[in-house]
Amino acid sequence: MVECGRIATMTEEPGRITRRFLTPPVHAVHDYLRARMQELGMQVHVDAVGNLRGLWQTEDAGGKRLVMGSHIDTVPDAGAYDGVLGVVIALEWVRIAKELKFPVNIEVIAFSEEEGVRFGVPFIGSRAVAGRFDEDILEAKDSDGVTLESAIRAFGLDPGQIGKAELDKDAVGFVEVHIEQGPVLESEGLSLAAVTAIVGQTRLTFEFIGHANHAGTTPMRLRRDALAAAAEWITKVEALALATDGLVATVGKVVVEPNAGNVVPGVVKVSLDVRHAQDSARKQAIEKLIESAEAIAARRSLTVKRTRQMDQPAVPMDERLTSFLADAIEAVGLPLKMMTSGAGHDAMVMAARVPTAMLFLRSPGGISHHPDEAVLEEDVEASLGVGRKFLERLAAEIR
Amino acid sequence: MVECGRIATMTEEPGRITRRFLTPPVHAVHDYLRARMQELGMQVHVDAVGNLRGLWQTEDAGGKRLVMGSHIDTVPDAGAYDGVLGVVIALEWVRIAKELKFPVNIEVIAFSEEEGVRFGVPFIGSRAVAGRFDEDILEAKDSDGVTLESAIRAFGLDPGQIGKAELDKDAVGFVEVHIEQGPVLESEGLSLAAVTAIVGQTRLTFEFIGHANHAGTTPMRLRRDALAAAAEWITKVEALALATDGLVATVGKVVVEPNAGNVVPGVVKVSLDVRHAQDSARKQAIEKLIESAEAIAARRSLTVKRTRQMDQPAVPMDERLTSFLADAIEAVGLPLKMMTSGAGHDAMVMAARVPTAMLFLRSPGGISHHPDEAVLEEDVEASLGVGRKFLERLAAEIR
Repeated sequence: MVECGRIATMTEEPGRITRRFLTPPVHAVHDYLRARMQELGMQVHVDAVGNLRGLWQTEDAGGKRLVMGSHIDTVPDAGAYDGVLGVVIALEWVRIAKELKFPVNIEVIAFSEEEGVRFGVPFIGSRAVAGRFDEDILEAKDSDGVTLESAIRAFGLDPGQIGKAELDKDAVGFVEVHIEQGPVLESEGLSLAAVTAIVGQTRLTFEFIGHANHAGTTPMRLRRDALAAAAEWITKVEALALATDGLVATVGKVVVEPNAGNVVPGVVKVSLDVRHAQDSARKQAIEKLIESAEAIAARRSLTVKRTRQMDQPAVPMDERLTSFLADAIEAVGLPLKMMTSGAGHDAMVMAARVPTAMLFLRSPGGISHHPDEAVLEEDVEASLGVGRKFLERLAAEIR
Repeated sequence: MVECGRIATMTEEPGRITRRFLTPPVHAVHDYLRARMQELGMQVHVDAVGNLRGLWQTEDAGGKRLVMGSHIDTVPDAGAYDGVLGVVIALEWVRIAKELKFPVNIEVIAFSEEEGVRFGVPFIGSRAVAGRFDEDILEAKDSDGVTLESAIRAFGLDPGQIGKAELDKDAVGFVEVHIEQGPVLESEGLSLAAVTAIVGQTRLTFEFIGHANHAGTTPMRLRRDALAAAAEWITKVEALALATDGLVATVGKVVVEPNAGNVVPGVVKVSLDVRHAQDSARKQAIEKLIESAEAIAARRSLTVKRTRQMDQPAVPMDERLTSFLADAIEAVGLPLKMMTSGAGHDAMVMAARVPTAMLFLRSPGGISHHPDEAVLEEDVEASLGVGRKFLERLAAEIR
């Protein structure tokens, strides 16, 4: 999409797409989107956490409002579509709504912060809109020592007004369009999917503690090799996830001490990331993997410690709104695909406040958070067709 | 041993035992050992690579000479016994030889360099004595940019004279006494062992190359997880070594990319260190582990690259001299233990030049290269008894 390519040029780092929360290129994105919103007859303002918000008011001016949007911040060296695509498509849906004389107002929000890069806290934009902004975050500092509070002021906003960013009661739903950021749709040859839930996630660190020894002088049976133990456990993590429908379990990080080729490892720390759309399935998997780590350590005369970093429940999408999206996918003649989201999104935060649905577009190569991130023009076209059917259905339900 | 404790105080770092090749505390060690050698009536000189050499000449002044010794350099933050103990015990054997009116001269060498810490090249002292000194090493630089050549000059020696350090033809054998640096003797409740061979060693790096992916959005069956592959292989390495008599195989180092808890690992590099006293057994193990890595990678649609860092054949000790040591162990009433050395020693280098044997003393806790390194007084006593029996036997064989 040409709009996403234009926004990609608004970056902190020439040659790479990097646009953290409230950095100077965000002003350029706001200017660009504001102009497009105004062309559509929308009233535009920036709320106190930097969300750009455009309101399209339908002719018969009923109070109800559909909210759409996604985020415009990026990870470092990002692609052009993560977040941004959802804002651009939302504006296209407004164009369709105008044609349809859609009976409900539409607010499009370009969320200022989703990735958590600058202050280590994600979803700052949607948290403010969902009424879940934690004032303590104002003291958080970025890598230059700038607090969130002073970053907000430096951007020309008033942190005292953040409470006013919260949605009012006229909001009847939230819809986010986003790239899948995974390989599932491509592997099945599909364009779009309706999201059923955002998976719950548990993150733990396991520390296997054995004994460092000389790799030449220590016979195998006299070793307490922390890496051999961790490796055995990593194979169990993979095997359990392969055997459990819908489960993903990842050991992504390994730190070995002393990490020398001629020393039997004494201590190995490994990360575990487990996700599932059903909280009970996730908890059961975690229990099994803890048991497995303890059994492996005990058999090898090692100890194992663990630390829990995150335990986040699954967030189901709204059944009714999601069924409208699913019906719209079928109505444009596409095969219906319902799937979970393995990554967090603004929709996860908004769902706590307002009925929420998400539409995924295929990610070629499954690539995201990378300059090669892409989207197919045919999938964007399909998403506009789905938008038309979805809005028609919503209009019929509301009338 | 009180002598080892004294020498331990001669260090580059107060509070830690660190004594690299040709650093100032080596002068202190030389002064201390020279005085002890002279008390024993030995003629002392320092050769051009800094080996301190004391010659005890027997009364009937036959030309033949038994050489003994070990090294006096240490790793950083070392223990007091690695190397040094072998020099101190050699001097005790000279004292016994004097009592026995041993019919052969004895030269005790305190090798200047074995650990390879300062210039990244081990065995510099024994290489010069064995006639295997490589002149190119003179250009090697330490971490301060000082070449070996200038370090030799700064110590007061003449690098042009290194050729004269080489053993002459009067040397009939070399015996090194050393701590085991492993847990075998302690685990079997034994004091001493005669060493049959120094194991051969192969070091390789394996690089498993898969694809980094989002840990939430990539289903298990669409992953090419380099760590899951490496972990599976590490369990095979351990299993093969456990199943192969005398084999040790160690994965000591792991580097994961990108090494983040929420990213499926794309590339994992692991070290492999394989040692065995029989070269054929070591080579066969290496072949199996390469096949195993390739099979695992192929099944998972990964690639695997490997780099060979070291391929060092096993060095058998001299059968006759070793049998004299073994007989001496039995003659003092100790159970006979013959074992391989999993670590390299000066004896490995000397064996290429002169019939060589090694005697191991138990390492409490299997600990070495650590301040907790220790030796039991009863084992030192036993080693002196073995020395007496060994010298008596040698005298009988030579007469």
